[in-house]
Amino acid sequence: MAETPSKFPEVQGGGSLIIAWQVKGKKILVVGGGEVAAGRILHCLNADADVTVVSPAARLNPEVAYRVAQQQVSHVDRNFDPSDLDGADMVLVAVDDPEASTTIWKLCKERRIPANIADVPPECDFYFGSVHRDGPLQIMVSTNGKGPRLASMIRKSIAKHLPSDAGRAIETIGQLRVKLRQIAPRPEEGPKRMAWMTKVSDAYPWDEMCGLSEEDMGNLLRFYPSGKVPSLDELKAMRANPAPGKNGFDGSFGFSVGA
Amino acid sequence: MAETPSKFPEVQGGGSLIIAWQVKGKKILVVGGGEVAAGRILHCLNADADVTVVSPAARLNPEVAYRVAQQQVSHVDRNFDPSDLDGADMVLVAVDDPEASTTIWKLCKERRIPANIADVPPECDFYFGSVHRDGPLQIMVSTNGKGPRLASMIRKSIAKHLPSDAGRAIETIGQLRVKLRQIAPRPEEGPKRMAWMTKVSDAYPWDEMCGLSEEDMGNLLRFYPSGKVPSLDELKAMRANPAPGKNGFDGSFGFSVGA
Repeated sequence: MAETPSKFPEVQGGGSLIIAWQVKGKKILVVGGGEVAAGRILHCLNADADVTVVSPAARLNPEVAYRVAQQQVSHVDRNFDPSDLDGADMVLVAVDDPEASTTIWKLCKERRIPANIADVPPECDFYFGSVHRDGPLQIMVSTNGKGPRLASMIRKSIAKHLPSDAGRAIETIGQLRVKLRQIAPRPEEGPKRMAWMTKVSDAYPWDEMCGLSEEDMGNLLRFYPSGKVPSLDELKAMRANPAPGKNGFDGSFGFSVGA
Repeated sequence: MAETPSKFPEVQGGGSLIIAWQVKGKKILVVGGGEVAAGRILHCLNADADVTVVSPAARLNPEVAYRVAQQQVSHVDRNFDPSDLDGADMVLVAVDDPEASTTIWKLCKERRIPANIADVPPECDFYFGSVHRDGPLQIMVSTNGKGPRLASMIRKSIAKHLPSDAGRAIETIGQLRVKLRQIAPRPEEGPKRMAWMTKVSDAYPWDEMCGLSEEDMGNLLRFYPSGKVPSLDELKAMRANPAPGKNGFDGSFGFSVGA
């Protein structure tokens, strides 16, 4: 306590490095077909991975069997064989066989394949948490192993407090960014584009972004050349039809902006 | 829409696989020493990684220079050299040099080292998000690249709605789990222990767990042999001093439970 506190954030050890792994089109091998495997598989499919499940068919739980039948995952109808690791980008093991699990873990480490052996923390490059999903928005809650059930309760409580169309607000911002790049495509405008997007994000409470229509986006983009951002009220006042019905807009972007 | 909806959760593609990477004692190489590097370094230190920063000293930003001076990270005072990758478990690149970045990315892929090249999504095995931290609790918000600034706003809004001592509630549950294993250590009691912990988690609103003292934990554990869980009111009524002052307990566990 004798030291003057630094003006930089203090290190708080004991956490994990929480990251959004990009597995689109990557090969994920899931060993086992029980309830835990079913949860892992859904996580992987939600991230567009190419999933292969290795497990005797007789031991697949109904959800995993359903994913196999729907061809959402590939299925190898037998126990694990080391050749299954060929080409795998990630391995998730969820079988009730500690010895087999450890063998697979060691093979993965030899081959430098990231792996998670369910319920065996020392044999995990990474842990899973409880994830809330709403379109492009993902919120992951980890208690760093202290209380998995609590993580799921906290996730539900967070979801309850989010605006119901938070995902749509984020899509809207994402669209705005894309449209902006269309009307101001030059790379040297990057800093101006970024500064303006920051101004937009700062100008409006994020949960009110959900309410912006395609028309609002169009009106907003007209301000970009000047570098200004209108207030939310000003923006709403620009609407052709100030109180649009649910079907008031066709979703098209019917205007053009001079550069 | 013709198909009957399945009873299993529907796949929502387009997300990431959000995971809590375990980097305690792992070697993370950070190439670059600017503002982005500073943020990455803090994330890594908060997860107990062994961080090495490669960057000419003259180009370190004040926060990174501070971490170097405090010996929180190792520092290599020059530009990147391929030999820096020897022994690295993860590589984070944040330099304003697209060509050098791509070269490092390719070297990492040859060596199967997970890597993130800041601002170059195709050269990333994983993305970062905005993380709220409170003791063992970590909440990560990702917008999957749609709005990084929005992610940070959502993170702040989530933090505002959490009980101020959420981290402590989780520590409490973690402690309860440890104490339970002390009074009922036999492996064959695993399922009974797990069932009882689940019952506890279900019995109390998670945000009220913050209010449980060491004494409450002790009283609660007395119920384990019977497999029962008292109501929160019953538990509070068991307190020796029903309205303890802030300094009413010494934090010790002054009782024993017969097995």
